[in-house]
Amino acid sequence: MNNKISEGILFTDFYQITMAQVYFKEGMHKMPSRFEYFFRHYPDYGAHKAGYCVNAGLETFIKWMMSVRFDDESINCLRQHTDLSGRPVFQEAFLEWLKNEGNFNSLSIYAIPEGRVIHPNVPIVVIEGPIALAQILETSLLNHLNYQILIATKAARVKESALGRPVFEFGMRRGPGMAVNAGARATLIGGADFTSNAGISYQLGYKPKGTHAHSMVQAFLALGKSEIDAFRACAELYQDSSVLLVDTIDTLRSGVPNAIKIFTELRDKGYKPLGIRLDSGDLAYLAIQSVKMLDNAGFNDVNIVLSNQLDEIIIWQIITQIRSEAARYGVNAENLINRLIYGVGTSLITSKGHEALDGVCKLVAVFKNSEWKSTMKLAENTGKTLNPARKKIWRVYEDNGKAVGDFLSLDTEKPYDMDEIILRHPMDNTKKRILKKSDIFKIEELLTVIMDKGQLVYKFPSIEEIRKTKEIDMANLHSGVKRIIFPHEYHVSLTDALWKIKENLITKIKDEIGRQ
Amino acid sequence: MNNKISEGILFTDFYQITMAQVYFKEGMHKMPSRFEYFFRHYPDYGAHKAGYCVNAGLETFIKWMMSVRFDDESINCLRQHTDLSGRPVFQEAFLEWLKNEGNFNSLSIYAIPEGRVIHPNVPIVVIEGPIALAQILETSLLNHLNYQILIATKAARVKESALGRPVFEFGMRRGPGMAVNAGARATLIGGADFTSNAGISYQLGYKPKGTHAHSMVQAFLALGKSEIDAFRACAELYQDSSVLLVDTIDTLRSGVPNAIKIFTELRDKGYKPLGIRLDSGDLAYLAIQSVKMLDNAGFNDVNIVLSNQLDEIIIWQIITQIRSEAARYGVNAENLINRLIYGVGTSLITSKGHEALDGVCKLVAVFKNSEWKSTMKLAENTGKTLNPARKKIWRVYEDNGKAVGDFLSLDTEKPYDMDEIILRHPMDNTKKRILKKSDIFKIEELLTVIMDKGQLVYKFPSIEEIRKTKEIDMANLHSGVKRIIFPHEYHVSLTDALWKIKENLITKIKDEIGRQ
Repeated sequence: MNNKISEGILFTDFYQITMAQVYFKEGMHKMPSRFEYFFRHYPDYGAHKAGYCVNAGLETFIKWMMSVRFDDESINCLRQHTDLSGRPVFQEAFLEWLKNEGNFNSLSIYAIPEGRVIHPNVPIVVIEGPIALAQILETSLLNHLNYQILIATKAARVKESALGRPVFEFGMRRGPGMAVNAGARATLIGGADFTSNAGISYQLGYKPKGTHAHSMVQAFLALGKSEIDAFRACAELYQDSSVLLVDTIDTLRSGVPNAIKIFTELRDKGYKPLGIRLDSGDLAYLAIQSVKMLDNAGFNDVNIVLSNQLDEIIIWQIITQIRSEAARYGVNAENLINRLIYGVGTSLITSKGHEALDGVCKLVAVFKNSEWKSTMKLAENTGKTLNPARKKIWRVYEDNGKAVGDFLSLDTEKPYDMDEIILRHPMDNTKKRILKKSDIFKIEELLTVIMDKGQLVYKFPSIEEIRKTKEIDMANLHSGVKRIIFPHEYHVSLTDALWKIKENLITKIKDEIGRQ
Repeated sequence: MNNKISEGILFTDFYQITMAQVYFKEGMHKMPSRFEYFFRHYPDYGAHKAGYCVNAGLETFIKWMMSVRFDDESINCLRQHTDLSGRPVFQEAFLEWLKNEGNFNSLSIYAIPEGRVIHPNVPIVVIEGPIALAQILETSLLNHLNYQILIATKAARVKESALGRPVFEFGMRRGPGMAVNAGARATLIGGADFTSNAGISYQLGYKPKGTHAHSMVQAFLALGKSEIDAFRACAELYQDSSVLLVDTIDTLRSGVPNAIKIFTELRDKGYKPLGIRLDSGDLAYLAIQSVKMLDNAGFNDVNIVLSNQLDEIIIWQIITQIRSEAARYGVNAENLINRLIYGVGTSLITSKGHEALDGVCKLVAVFKNSEWKSTMKLAENTGKTLNPARKKIWRVYEDNGKAVGDFLSLDTEKPYDMDEIILRHPMDNTKKRILKKSDIFKIEELLTVIMDKGQLVYKFPSIEEIRKTKEIDMANLHSGVKRIIFPHEYHVSLTDALWKIKENLITKIKDEIGRQ
């Protein structure tokens, strides 16, 4: 496919363009507007649920945004689009405007940086600028952020479950098309140490990781050679980095004994063998038995790479099983657990159990007659009623450094100057609490300027820097919030002033309906 | 991101390249080999399960394959990759070979065409050629086919559930990054009539579809105008294609009455109003009430577009609810159902409930000493033992035209000449059945030559042609196999000759283990 059309500025929902034309026709297209991107719920994987998310995708989105515009080719696509009567859907005046001003150079973007821990109903990215262009940008923002946050969050959970041991991302073969590159990037942010994906690794400045496949052993066997010949060929080439896959024939009767012979040869030549990989069967049991054989042969620090349908729950289960059973076989459980490496594939790159973050991008204010006016949408489902107005986002820490909650204020409020902050639940009108100045150890504003009217004013951090941000934020979460199953709920609130604006808007719209 | 590295030939698992170097070092790299791509299980969505899959992704994969090669940039990435001791992982002789012959121009590809209905354990794509290059190609094959088959299959299920009514793909905002383009293509193959994704629609020669968003109504409200002003602005611009979103304020008290006013204006001007969209609340109930109001105003053929978390089960439930309840409100259920259009988003583009097809690509034979030698892999899980040898794939039809089963034969077998075909279950040794010539109405070979030693010898059909292929295959499936819940199991078998080769290889490998 020539992807120029499908990955350029037309990477958007069609209705964004038809709405842009409505705005153009009404003379509203340049009206400054504010759209906020947020998600409503943490991923819920079925039997388990997240208590936090990890922000990712911003740089990918911004670089896309800066690289696209309406050019002749994309405008021609629109020009040729006719309605049921055969008339052009898009008028020439509108196409002319798109040709001249159809880019994102007039928009400002505010965002919470990548790697930060984030929560529901908190704006993560804000677009301000001409409504017609903000509308066209909306789909791409949703697309890039929803997927990368989803995957970074899953990676953080897997890493927590792995108790800090290395996690390798192995999912590209079953992940969603070319998006596995964005997905692999998100796993590196969220918790994977490396990925098997060669191209994205090199592009991001990482070394890809891998072992070998069953096919290599099979090929040797088909030539009348043996598993050990295959292992030896591999070990001779990659003397200090060979991880031998031991389950092509029979893990404990063939694979591990053959690996030990090869490791002995390597040791005799002065090399330190790296590891074996288990890819089928009862991984906990096989890990215990393999380590026992390796230890008996004097390889007390060879790693065991586990793979095959792993996720945060299966890793937790494997560790639990090893802790219960290893001693029975004379193996030290904690020593074994500290030699494990997890190759996590499909479940990570697809966020198994929860396929999509429910992020939305909503119009919350427009600028008219020299002032910002808040906008509102009621809904059949009250949980979907949005939080209007231009606002700021704050995170509050207690004196042990732990984050205790996020809240949304009006743009003009200065909560760090207030003696007490009245906080309201974003959905439940009956819930209210008061935060006293003395309860607050630190208060931090979360949104940063990324683009100022089309100018990039933000220096994108490296993946390593983003990882550090994530580690600091994770360390500042209460452990109850990080629990894999049934996590404690982190507080997200509105200030009383913002809450009142929301209530007034709801009342006003309901009055309108009553009058009709 | 500069995606040249990550979307070029390095779009592969790193171990494919390290294995290629092992083969090179052993002088095996040019050995002709045969890899077969197949999946092991139909998607299982939890409470429901597929009884068939729809093939998709081949053209995307082949075009990628033909467009990439090892160039200076990708080779430099490999050259700079050092091991733990700081030595280069890849030797110059190997890199030199990659530079000269590191492309897919020597490979042959056989495949089942896109749009065909496909089943587990049946090879869908076959790679034949030098083992080192086939290995490097494996990941991309898996990636492209696994995702598109998964999504085309979900789309086919949604379309079946929709009883033939139009399905619009609306998922790009929550789908997986740029892969939503490949995903949208797969939905068009599998069952979606249109997609909201503007770029991929134009690229594939379709018209994208859409309505408008809540934000458009909100923007008008914020300017002191009303919902009806927003509707009118939209209807004046898109006179014969306006679908008005009626749930921004209150569906039945505001949205539908306002839409009816606008439709009346359109009708007075001689236009035929197209439809309304319901996006929240109890969609079945709101559809009944909306249609009642529309009918009372004389709009008996305005469409109702439904959206909000739809999938094949929710659509089925909505139709069931309408059939139970419409009459109570004086609405004709079948008339209403025949006016419904389904906007299906997240659940379709992410295959909600089953995130990844379990497709694998396995080495089944290598060519040595002038003959093809079958290869085998045992496994801890017996269900993963593969079917060896070069083979052909056949589909058998009974005299009513329905497909009754697929089977795999040796490449040299001619089943259409046999008086009876002994068929074996691929996993269960105890299951065997005999197909008599008289039972066979038609027998069809499924694999087609796509690339012959690097030459494209296949003309890619248009999406429209692929859709027709899919419709024919769907019509030839027994309805029990198409059932959304608990489908009947379609038969996939091995010929007795192929089965014997498999048994012999298993015995031989087990003997090997015994001798060690």
